[in-house]
Amino acid sequence: MLVVKSSDEARYIIENEFPGTLPEYETVTSSEALGRICALDIISGEDIPGYERSTVDGFALRASDTFGCSESIPAQLIYKGEILMGDNSPLEISAGECAYVPTGGRIPSGADAMVMVEYTEDLHDGFIYINKASAPGQHLIFKGDDLKEGDVIVKKGTVIRPLEIGALSSAGISSVPVVRRPKVAVISTGDELIDIGSVPEGSQIRDVNSSLLASAVSDSGGEPVIYGIVPDDYSKLRQTVEKALDSCDILFLSGGSSVGTRDITLKVMESIPGSEILFHGIAVKPGKPTILAKCMGKAVFGLPGHPVSAYFIAREFALPLVRRLSGKKDDTRIIYARTARNLPSNHGREEFVPVKLLPDGQFPAAVPVDGKSSLITTLSEADGYIRIGRDCEGLNRDDKVSVILL
Amino acid sequence: MLVVKSSDEARYIIENEFPGTLPEYETVTSSEALGRICALDIISGEDIPGYERSTVDGFALRASDTFGCSESIPAQLIYKGEILMGDNSPLEISAGECAYVPTGGRIPSGADAMVMVEYTEDLHDGFIYINKASAPGQHLIFKGDDLKEGDVIVKKGTVIRPLEIGALSSAGISSVPVVRRPKVAVISTGDELIDIGSVPEGSQIRDVNSSLLASAVSDSGGEPVIYGIVPDDYSKLRQTVEKALDSCDILFLSGGSSVGTRDITLKVMESIPGSEILFHGIAVKPGKPTILAKCMGKAVFGLPGHPVSAYFIAREFALPLVRRLSGKKDDTRIIYARTARNLPSNHGREEFVPVKLLPDGQFPAAVPVDGKSSLITTLSEADGYIRIGRDCEGLNRDDKVSVILL
Repeated sequence: MLVVKSSDEARYIIENEFPGTLPEYETVTSSEALGRICALDIISGEDIPGYERSTVDGFALRASDTFGCSESIPAQLIYKGEILMGDNSPLEISAGECAYVPTGGRIPSGADAMVMVEYTEDLHDGFIYINKASAPGQHLIFKGDDLKEGDVIVKKGTVIRPLEIGALSSAGISSVPVVRRPKVAVISTGDELIDIGSVPEGSQIRDVNSSLLASAVSDSGGEPVIYGIVPDDYSKLRQTVEKALDSCDILFLSGGSSVGTRDITLKVMESIPGSEILFHGIAVKPGKPTILAKCMGKAVFGLPGHPVSAYFIAREFALPLVRRLSGKKDDTRIIYARTARNLPSNHGREEFVPVKLLPDGQFPAAVPVDGKSSLITTLSEADGYIRIGRDCEGLNRDDKVSVILL
Repeated sequence: MLVVKSSDEARYIIENEFPGTLPEYETVTSSEALGRICALDIISGEDIPGYERSTVDGFALRASDTFGCSESIPAQLIYKGEILMGDNSPLEISAGECAYVPTGGRIPSGADAMVMVEYTEDLHDGFIYINKASAPGQHLIFKGDDLKEGDVIVKKGTVIRPLEIGALSSAGISSVPVVRRPKVAVISTGDELIDIGSVPEGSQIRDVNSSLLASAVSDSGGEPVIYGIVPDDYSKLRQTVEKALDSCDILFLSGGSSVGTRDITLKVMESIPGSEILFHGIAVKPGKPTILAKCMGKAVFGLPGHPVSAYFIAREFALPLVRRLSGKKDDTRIIYARTARNLPSNHGREEFVPVKLLPDGQFPAAVPVDGKSSLITTLSEADGYIRIGRDCEGLNRDDKVSVILL
């Protein structure tokens, strides 16, 4: 029974059946954590800053000593010295005294405010003359202003950006618990397939899908595990799928463009105890004969054997799941263009049409590159693709379209 | 002499002084080539496909045998057997004969067209009955249709996507010459800096910039080389810069928020024979005291010491260069929002205002997170930032703004 879903139904099923992230986590150095999902709340073990700091270059003093002062009646304070960056001098300020503190420098004890150097005068007579009143706390960062001991620095579920790495560094934290990346098994099936290092004879063709899908998995933040070529043989394919289910989180089986292979793939999926076929066919072109099963709680995609079809199905349906589980940012970019010619479409199936973009006035022209062969070398000439909705009967020349960059 | 440039002038100078990509290349496996820039035209060594193939499931035959046939007057052809996927049988077709060929299968010699299985009938009497005429070449892919020996598969300068890896695989190519990635030296200067593993005393602060900038470089496709902390000392800094110029392509010096350090940085840059200071100050906030020099043909950025300022300057000016040299796709994303409150701005300087996005009707509300400290832990709470143009006097509450996601 072929259960064909619309593309939106298929997306919904994937989101719904495989929610959240992987439960396991690992601890990595903060530089390795870039782009990963933080697995636990990370707590500061200290107050940051650990001391009162100045936000300006100027003089630390008691605010009360400056009340009422002005350019014509400056406050005259005893100069007690300078706080250097990085030093830890025991300098203290009492009433009527001040000390120079650079931006970021520690406020000496006894002081409660800063006055910017611009509002002071140094006549080299042992005093500093203050021309502007300051309020307590002015131009200061207090101990723990930025983070208090016990505060959460990075929340569980956050994707670690350089900023989080910087924030962790400021709290002295250099290792981070992150969610494990999904391992994606890439399995090619088909008697006609040969290794890419071999020269095809007769009807043989090179196994393009292993490298194509593995690199697409890497590009989406997953860790591809290439299982190589499996012939159209039930027990050999079942063995490989069992092995992959043992150590991977998602399976990409490709092949089975012929009905026979598709039957074997389906039979293998159904043979896994407790497995469930979620759909069998998506109303899209290319790539209709796509199977999705849930085996041992894992998503097992049966992708078409034709590389172009396999790629589109992976990109539209399988890779978004890999990206979500890995925390990888969606870097899909869209360019607005106009169609260079009429594009008839199959009513009832969403269609993906690869196009080349040619500069042409305000909107580039989107020229279809779907030659009769639709081979992967042709597709690699495409800059992007257009989605033609399943209820749309096609596009006219000069229609405005969104081109999803490949 | 402080030569302050507008942000657009600064960007222009960077593009203009450091054009193109690095000249050196290295050869990597095609899976390692993902996201790298192809350094040479890659040529196919063979015709692809290497044989005539069918694009449908059906019967290979001579088109002339089907001329004039129809459902009522089918052509009767002798069934010679089946071409299996992957086999290399010597089957030949003469006039009046046909053979079954699956999609992708080899066309037996002597045949010049296919008829889809839907338009045929098999009465198991040794003949196949053809109900529809076919033209020579119909449903065939010819030898070399996709690529001919000597054709370029991937052009020099192309950023390698999974599709290019697939196309190369189909031609049996598994190693690719790619442009070398830029090595970016990350040098932190300042007497007050301590390693992030240490506990600050007095005015000491942890060196946030090394990990922050190094991870930002990785995120932009570059290879960071961390030189660690250098004290505010001319000869020590000069030594480190010389070493870095020897082995890196771009230098990020950060520190020098104090005038003294800035002077040392500048003096070191000027001391490199043939060096040129391209600008000294950008009219932006935060981050005005930014220096760019060209030393031995390489970009040497003197970034502010304050991590938030260093990050914004890197992100807006230095990292786009890293990205271009490495071939990394710009994955900057923009979200349209409305300002949650009035945002006054310094006329004359472009301002970067970090914001948090809160869901609120059609447009999320962009709430500034620039607390008084503007520390990196505060910035890590931001989802993105707003650019306020230098000739703009600020934004009003509810103004529509583009938020650049961090």
